Amino acid sequence: MASPSQLLQFIDQNADKFIGRLGEAVAIPSISGDATRRPDVFKMSAWLDGQLKSLGVTTKLMDLGKHVMDGQELPLPPAILGRIGDDPKKKTVLVYGHYDVQPANKSDGWDTEPFQLVIDEKTGRLIGRGSTDDKGPILGWLNVLEAHKALGLELPVNMRFCFEGMEENGSEGLDDLIKSEVAKGKDGWFDGVDCVCISDNYWLNSRTPCITYGLRGLVYFKLTVSGPARDLHSGVFGRMVHEPMTDLIQLMSKLVASDGTILVPGVDDMVSIADAEEKQIYEKLDYSVKDVEDAVGAPITLSDDKVEVIMGRMRMPSLSLHGIEGAFYGAGAKTVIPASVSGKFSIRIVPPQTPEKIEPLVVQYVQQEFAKLKSKNTLKIENLHDGRPWLADYKHWNYEAARRATEAIYKRAPDLTREGGSIPVTLTFAESLGVNVLLLPMGRGDDGAHSTNEKLDRSNFIEGSKLLGTYLYEVAAINA
Amino acid sequence: MASPSQLLQFIDQNADKFIGRLGEAVAIPSISGDATRRPDVFKMSAWLDGQLKSLGVTTKLMDLGKHVMDGQELPLPPAILGRIGDDPKKKTVLVYGHYDVQPANKSDGWDTEPFQLVIDEKTGRLIGRGSTDDKGPILGWLNVLEAHKALGLELPVNMRFCFEGMEENGSEGLDDLIKSEVAKGKDGWFDGVDCVCISDNYWLNSRTPCITYGLRGLVYFKLTVSGPARDLHSGVFGRMVHEPMTDLIQLMSKLVASDGTILVPGVDDMVSIADAEEKQIYEKLDYSVKDVEDAVGAPITLSDDKVEVIMGRMRMPSLSLHGIEGAFYGAGAKTVIPASVSGKFSIRIVPPQTPEKIEPLVVQYVQQEFAKLKSKNTLKIENLHDGRPWLADYKHWNYEAARRATEAIYKRAPDLTREGGSIPVTLTFAESLGVNVLLLPMGRGDDGAHSTNEKLDRSNFIEGSKLLGTYLYEVAAINA
Repeated sequence: MASPSQLLQFIDQNADKFIGRLGEAVAIPSISGDATRRPDVFKMSAWLDGQLKSLGVTTKLMDLGKHVMDGQELPLPPAILGRIGDDPKKKTVLVYGHYDVQPANKSDGWDTEPFQLVIDEKTGRLIGRGSTDDKGPILGWLNVLEAHKALGLELPVNMRFCFEGMEENGSEGLDDLIKSEVAKGKDGWFDGVDCVCISDNYWLNSRTPCITYGLRGLVYFKLTVSGPARDLHSGVFGRMVHEPMTDLIQLMSKLVASDGTILVPGVDDMVSIADAEEKQIYEKLDYSVKDVEDAVGAPITLSDDKVEVIMGRMRMPSLSLHGIEGAFYGAGAKTVIPASVSGKFSIRIVPPQTPEKIEPLVVQYVQQEFAKLKSKNTLKIENLHDGRPWLADYKHWNYEAARRATEAIYKRAPDLTREGGSIPVTLTFAESLGVNVLLLPMGRGDDGAHSTNEKLDRSNFIEGSKLLGTYLYEVAAINA
Repeated sequence: MASPSQLLQFIDQNADKFIGRLGEAVAIPSISGDATRRPDVFKMSAWLDGQLKSLGVTTKLMDLGKHVMDGQELPLPPAILGRIGDDPKKKTVLVYGHYDVQPANKSDGWDTEPFQLVIDEKTGRLIGRGSTDDKGPILGWLNVLEAHKALGLELPVNMRFCFEGMEENGSEGLDDLIKSEVAKGKDGWFDGVDCVCISDNYWLNSRTPCITYGLRGLVYFKLTVSGPARDLHSGVFGRMVHEPMTDLIQLMSKLVASDGTILVPGVDDMVSIADAEEKQIYEKLDYSVKDVEDAVGAPITLSDDKVEVIMGRMRMPSLSLHGIEGAFYGAGAKTVIPASVSGKFSIRIVPPQTPEKIEPLVVQYVQQEFAKLKSKNTLKIENLHDGRPWLADYKHWNYEAARRATEAIYKRAPDLTREGGSIPVTLTFAESLGVNVLLLPMGRGDDGAHSTNEKLDRSNFIEGSKLLGTYLYEVAAINA
């Protein structure tokens, strides 16, 4: 079942109006990580709630309680739950998005005012904070709803909505809300959901649409080596005592090799070798070594082989050393022996790895390596936070629907990608609801989601709105 | 020739007056490292110049030009050169000290106002910034001069003075001044100097006086590994690219072992093994493993053998890893791949090591180790600053005079020490003048020179003044 041509026409005809609405959304600086902007996050929730209601969606603002930020207690922005359609003959699609944004100041290096949507007619870019992350995609759904309402069309599926206002700041309270709604069964907002669609990631490049079926998990470690009671002068105590930095650097050097190999025994081994079918997915991706070099700004890929490089992000664990707390970090030359230093590193993990499997391997190995140093300093190992990886069945009808919709709108097969980062709510939906979750991005890889001059291409907003609408029709049509 | 008993009596009788003068000096917050205090440094130079003049010393304030600090151009505090006595039959002793001090605020953790000398009657401590570093020792010389003037005694030697006001901030301009004065020959202030005495270090402990004949030098390195054009997200790029932190940590781990061994080939090897005579010096020192443990606040010495531990500071090179610039250093968990990171480390060097011999060994080794990593990142090695080690002939009559003076005043033989840090002016005097330089400390190892609650024990100030005076008589008496 193709989407009705009126739908696509309507979106085209109302493009300017839709962009105007995106401008309204961008104009509300709903920065969840800035305590002084908390009222704007609430303002944004009210604006979005109003839009949904006006388009026929039944909503409820869910109070998530309070939290402490920058030393003050603040109310958490509400999660907006919504529902439209209750036809038992139709499938039910749950849509997630977030209405909060990253901080932005013109002085950070923006070329334009970040909270004023600027339409660059030459490039077709819609520039403004939140344009692509994640107000554009949310408004894509609104555009679909508006088209149906205006055209008097019935939606092909029942829809459920879950929009939050704390995604850029840890999604506080959301996991508990989702779990408690699921626990309510028939009385919960998510009863009867057949699949989930999240539009909060990006194409691999700026050319080819993609659908995403995997995310890496994470285990973040802090290794603290402590010795003297206070910082020492290297002139006075150098070569008299065990120096914590010396021990910590030895330990950190045992974690990962320059070629990316994780040296903690058992971690890399836990991951299966990619088979031919899987490798073919990577081979087919519209993504080259040159794309990576362009993205990072230097020719520093670990391999010159495209598939190897792609597999490094998409299906291999990675270990990154982030820095050291407690050591000298300023400019210039200070001759300090720091008393206590904490090395920070994290391991991005992939199935079948879980934090529960990885943590003991790391702890045991680091302790063994520390014992070898025969140091009189003390070692402490902490897990600062973690999250499991997520991998969906990309042969599921939910993905098939997205693939067909992409082909219908973009006239080409989407790239099938896994991402190297994490979107924790994905896993929460997958595990709590027990249904297939799909990541269906609207924006491009160069949108600069958390950066200056964040943008969403006009064509991605408009074609992306058509894609979301068409996806609903494909879900409805498919033989599940 | 013992010092006249009137001298010692006079110092005892005038102790309170001398402590009062120390209070005047401490009350001037002559912090050379704080631009807003520069007028106080000048005030201190005028105060000291006035004292010297009133005691019969011919002085000249030497303009050292200007420098830039905290973004503003400031006049450098003058060096005060002085002379008293021109008897060709007497030896000529050059005395160095500095009248500037480290920063201090009560809020740093001082129990009393740092710029108000507090006399703790119970402990006998004179507490205040500069009390021991280095106003106390300078005032020790003034006490000796005053005693001679009041008693109508002739000084046993000709004296020359060099007091600076920038020691705590790099001694800017002083080296050039010393060299240019030496170059003037007969017309210079240092003509005819037979030996130098510097009182700007400390006893090894709080019990036993010492004289010091060696200082380590230093070479401070910065290793910068750069890769991507900007910081990257470890989720997106982890295991796709060569990470600068991974490479830097590998390099830093190749520099020094946990037991203090320097891993740069040729560095440790350059230093001879201590012979029996030298080991006996360390054996005899009133300094134990327990003293080191107390000083650092933890049982972390590299060895349980006293001589081994002492040799680590006094006659071995040491390599300390100070920290990393450019990496994540804050609290919490940030998943950044830093784009460019600079590891800071320094090597404390001992004779026959020089920066000129050490730097190429380090550069070559680090480059070799970097090549082994086969990384596409780039490496830059910088020498941020360096200084040569200094070692004096402790059998010289200058040291013999100090030894005899110590025995006369403290009724015990001084410890014969080498220090692990640097006092660059020592080497400048030794090399420019070509005479023996002696470090004859007044204060104790626990004075807290650069710390909070800096103090000088009353007995060290008074007996120390006697020591300096007696030293002059022993210099005069000795058969050079």
